[in-house]
Amino acid sequence: MISNGERLLFLPLGGAGEIGMNLNLYGLAGKWIMVDLGISFADDHLPGVDIIMPDPSFIVDRREDLLGLVLTHAHEDHLGAVPFLWPELRCPVFATPFSAAVLRRKLQRDGAAPGISDLDLTEVPLGGNLTLGPFDIEFISLTHSIPEPNALAIRTTLGTVLHTGDWKIDPDPLVGSTTDEEALRRYGDEGVLAMVCDSTNVFRNGESGSEAEVRACLTDLVSQNNSGYVAISGFASNVARIDTVAAAADANGRSVAIAGRSLWRILEAAKETGYIDADRQFLSDREAANLPPEKVLYLCTGSQGEKNAALARIATDSHPHITLGRGDVVIFSSKIIPGNEKAISRLQNLLVYKGVEVVTEADHFVHVSGHPCRDELARMYQWVRPQIAVPVHGEARHLIEHGRLAGELQVPTAVVIENGDMLCLAPGAPKLVDQVPYGRLMADGNALVNVASPVMQARRRLMHNGAAFVTLVVDADNNLVADPAVTAQGLFHPKDFSADGDAGLVAAAAAVRTAFTTFTERSRKDDSVIREAVRQIVVRSLRESRMKRPVVEVQIIRLESRVEPS
Amino acid sequence: MISNGERLLFLPLGGAGEIGMNLNLYGLAGKWIMVDLGISFADDHLPGVDIIMPDPSFIVDRREDLLGLVLTHAHEDHLGAVPFLWPELRCPVFATPFSAAVLRRKLQRDGAAPGISDLDLTEVPLGGNLTLGPFDIEFISLTHSIPEPNALAIRTTLGTVLHTGDWKIDPDPLVGSTTDEEALRRYGDEGVLAMVCDSTNVFRNGESGSEAEVRACLTDLVSQNNSGYVAISGFASNVARIDTVAAAADANGRSVAIAGRSLWRILEAAKETGYIDADRQFLSDREAANLPPEKVLYLCTGSQGEKNAALARIATDSHPHITLGRGDVVIFSSKIIPGNEKAISRLQNLLVYKGVEVVTEADHFVHVSGHPCRDELARMYQWVRPQIAVPVHGEARHLIEHGRLAGELQVPTAVVIENGDMLCLAPGAPKLVDQVPYGRLMADGNALVNVASPVMQARRRLMHNGAAFVTLVVDADNNLVADPAVTAQGLFHPKDFSADGDAGLVAAAAAVRTAFTTFTERSRKDDSVIREAVRQIVVRSLRESRMKRPVVEVQIIRLESRVEPS
Repeated sequence: MISNGERLLFLPLGGAGEIGMNLNLYGLAGKWIMVDLGISFADDHLPGVDIIMPDPSFIVDRREDLLGLVLTHAHEDHLGAVPFLWPELRCPVFATPFSAAVLRRKLQRDGAAPGISDLDLTEVPLGGNLTLGPFDIEFISLTHSIPEPNALAIRTTLGTVLHTGDWKIDPDPLVGSTTDEEALRRYGDEGVLAMVCDSTNVFRNGESGSEAEVRACLTDLVSQNNSGYVAISGFASNVARIDTVAAAADANGRSVAIAGRSLWRILEAAKETGYIDADRQFLSDREAANLPPEKVLYLCTGSQGEKNAALARIATDSHPHITLGRGDVVIFSSKIIPGNEKAISRLQNLLVYKGVEVVTEADHFVHVSGHPCRDELARMYQWVRPQIAVPVHGEARHLIEHGRLAGELQVPTAVVIENGDMLCLAPGAPKLVDQVPYGRLMADGNALVNVASPVMQARRRLMHNGAAFVTLVVDADNNLVADPAVTAQGLFHPKDFSADGDAGLVAAAAAVRTAFTTFTERSRKDDSVIREAVRQIVVRSLRESRMKRPVVEVQIIRLESRVEPS
Repeated sequence: MISNGERLLFLPLGGAGEIGMNLNLYGLAGKWIMVDLGISFADDHLPGVDIIMPDPSFIVDRREDLLGLVLTHAHEDHLGAVPFLWPELRCPVFATPFSAAVLRRKLQRDGAAPGISDLDLTEVPLGGNLTLGPFDIEFISLTHSIPEPNALAIRTTLGTVLHTGDWKIDPDPLVGSTTDEEALRRYGDEGVLAMVCDSTNVFRNGESGSEAEVRACLTDLVSQNNSGYVAISGFASNVARIDTVAAAADANGRSVAIAGRSLWRILEAAKETGYIDADRQFLSDREAANLPPEKVLYLCTGSQGEKNAALARIATDSHPHITLGRGDVVIFSSKIIPGNEKAISRLQNLLVYKGVEVVTEADHFVHVSGHPCRDELARMYQWVRPQIAVPVHGEARHLIEHGRLAGELQVPTAVVIENGDMLCLAPGAPKLVDQVPYGRLMADGNALVNVASPVMQARRRLMHNGAAFVTLVVDADNNLVADPAVTAQGLFHPKDFSADGDAGLVAAAAAVRTAFTTFTERSRKDDSVIREAVRQIVVRSLRESRMKRPVVEVQIIRLESRVEPS
């Protein structure tokens, strides 16, 4: 049993030891606030799984003490789990206007969990304040790769925590305000107990660069093609990049045509909140199909090689309105998210085979990261001067390197923690006071399932080995009244089959029939005994015939009457 | 029907449009030779699949005209498919001594296909010659990242093809001879019709670097640790690197201890063929456990994050003899093979969490590629001066860039082809004369299955959706004699279940029972009609209860007698 009395606690359930699915909890005097609630995209470690999110059980068990969920910004890894998990939390949600506009669209879409319509979403103005029980929170505008990234200054009686969220220092972000250095310095002057800070780019020296530099490069690249289509693909949520594509089109006498629904959704949110001029017209891909190639600048989804996105459909000649080929250019205004290397490679190879010229950040300055490199981290630490550095938003090696860097920057204490570590920030020296179980959930149909659950284990076994199904029909005298039926899925290759059915299945059925005659009267009465014995017989038989260990499901149908052989 | 008469044909069935699983065919006067027969390691595009290889059906159908399989070197992507596919080909196999030693060990291992013991393996000396029908073949020693990489000079009446295999120009390969520049120049002087050449590093400027430089760096890195364990992991087949680890150990008063079976196998082959001194002692990991840490230099498998390799077991504290922690160093003397990024990241993070210092090629010069960068390609083209460049061993973008580079290097014609393209090299200008179906096979139990086969499709469906099994027992009057049984695998989460079984399954069974009463007498007699109708009912019911579309298998057991309800 956890008693958190008069301690200021920090507990990440996601994002500490990984880049993705952030979930941070702050606790004081028996009350909690949550900062961010994001998803990750699963990799090949979890076959068949698309989206994963933190298991919030710890706080669900204490939800009467959860005062609110505060969202730093609108990226999927910070708010993408709200539609799935909010019904378990049912706390007030706070976000700045653009994040709120994105979240509302997300909640309206299909797939949001039942009860989500009760969600109470409060808009906080930029630079605004919020009090939740013992936590006084101020939103501080930073820069990132989406409008309205906010640091949260969380003031308590035991000290102030600066939770940076995701950030960089972009002197010319094109859309939205610049970093509120004054506010950060002000907190630094007042004294900050701890800074919980983004570690993504801690291994990169220098600075991340500005959206303005990308605009110059993209505009120039578009100007170099006078006769063909140019298509630019990036992260849909980067409104500055969308604005850059519009500017590059204007400068080169082209019209922007949008391909991909997620771009339309972000455009709506950006227009609603004033980050894109509401009167600015964007063509649909269908409308652009009538224009000459040199008059069109496509903005496409799919830079990560996503299967059903616009770029993938273009590359496989299955897009209804866009066909690219020799003389056309596709610019990947994006980075490769780790895990997507092969998918992106496949996509780019398909485009290259069609004669399309592919431009990436390896060739030109067509992308900047949204996260701070080492010089930016150094400036942030100079401004905020925390007593304690708590690196988050990184894998183990990022967090450890970030802790080392904080030490070099004269931060007295750096604490490297993992998801589930409950860190007491005050009073006294920071220390781990508990380890909370944490896990990962996946959306599977209408359920949220732990990725380590038996369901997923069964699916993995099915994937590797296929399945065999055995049915025994037993009468009231415990005799078989029909031959055992054995069929399979994902086990035998069609050419293995003869017209009379497969030898491997026939052999398995014969083995079951023979074995059944040896079962004692007593075991014949016990379904679980029969089931396990038959399962083992079938596994053994199929291992011999097929060298596989399929999942074997045995059904025993008991007839209440005695059946006379006909 | 293909008639290849008096044409010199080149037909890749693997390796053209991908990096991995090479299979090259040369045809002349109705006869064929095969160069290399490799595997690839599958990525997340093919969940549940480990190893894939080219489908050799084209040449299996013509195997009486297949004069031999010539192996350029012993890497898995060049000979790894021999144990699986040779029984389909049954042709003589030719390799230089080290490759032969590796292949023999591979054939002796479990899992080689039946009939493999008939394989007729002929050793060709370095620089040796071989005549197979219309093909006169000379082996030319190159350098790479394994002993005995050979180019093949294939002389025919219609011209000479230089098939490079994998290569680089390493002035100091440490093990084995240097590049036989003289032979290459000699062929260049004679006149080479076509060069079929490695494209892997065509995007890299300069030169790939030498094994000797890696030795200097590794030796220095080991000397910097005076008190802890040092472990080095790389590609097992790189004998020069193994020799370097031995040299680094000698220079620093440490003993080499081997962790990983594939390293022992390569060591055996290298000692047998004289590339490692037969008297050189290597400790086992068990033997080294008794030595003080600063006396041990571990050489480990698992640099690619492979699940059951030594490094993974060390990282998860499940290695029986090796425990690493604070003060110890693990050096990844390897590159990241595309697709392994996440697995390697996970591995490195686990090590870092244990306090182990992780060193990679991002930090120090601990690895060199075995493939030619642009300056090396330029030198090769200067030596050989082919009329036609045929880039292979690359993805589309590599092949196209290689073709462009060959043009810059004054090669009159560069032809970019894909797997399955049959290229006529002579007489006349090179042209595509046919497209041959090609595919990919996977080893699945004791079968080779096409990755696009229905078996694999079924497995993927099982992985995404699980399976439901339905049994109906029907008597001679076509009546149900028991309640329909519905069970599932990988579909319902345990917490969904009540003591009486799952509501979703109960509902599905009820839907089937109800629907059965509405079936006509005629359809009740037809198993296939019942099966499809029941399948649809169950899919619909489970989609409602679970929002999933499982694979549904329906078994109908017909009793020959009429059953009286009890």
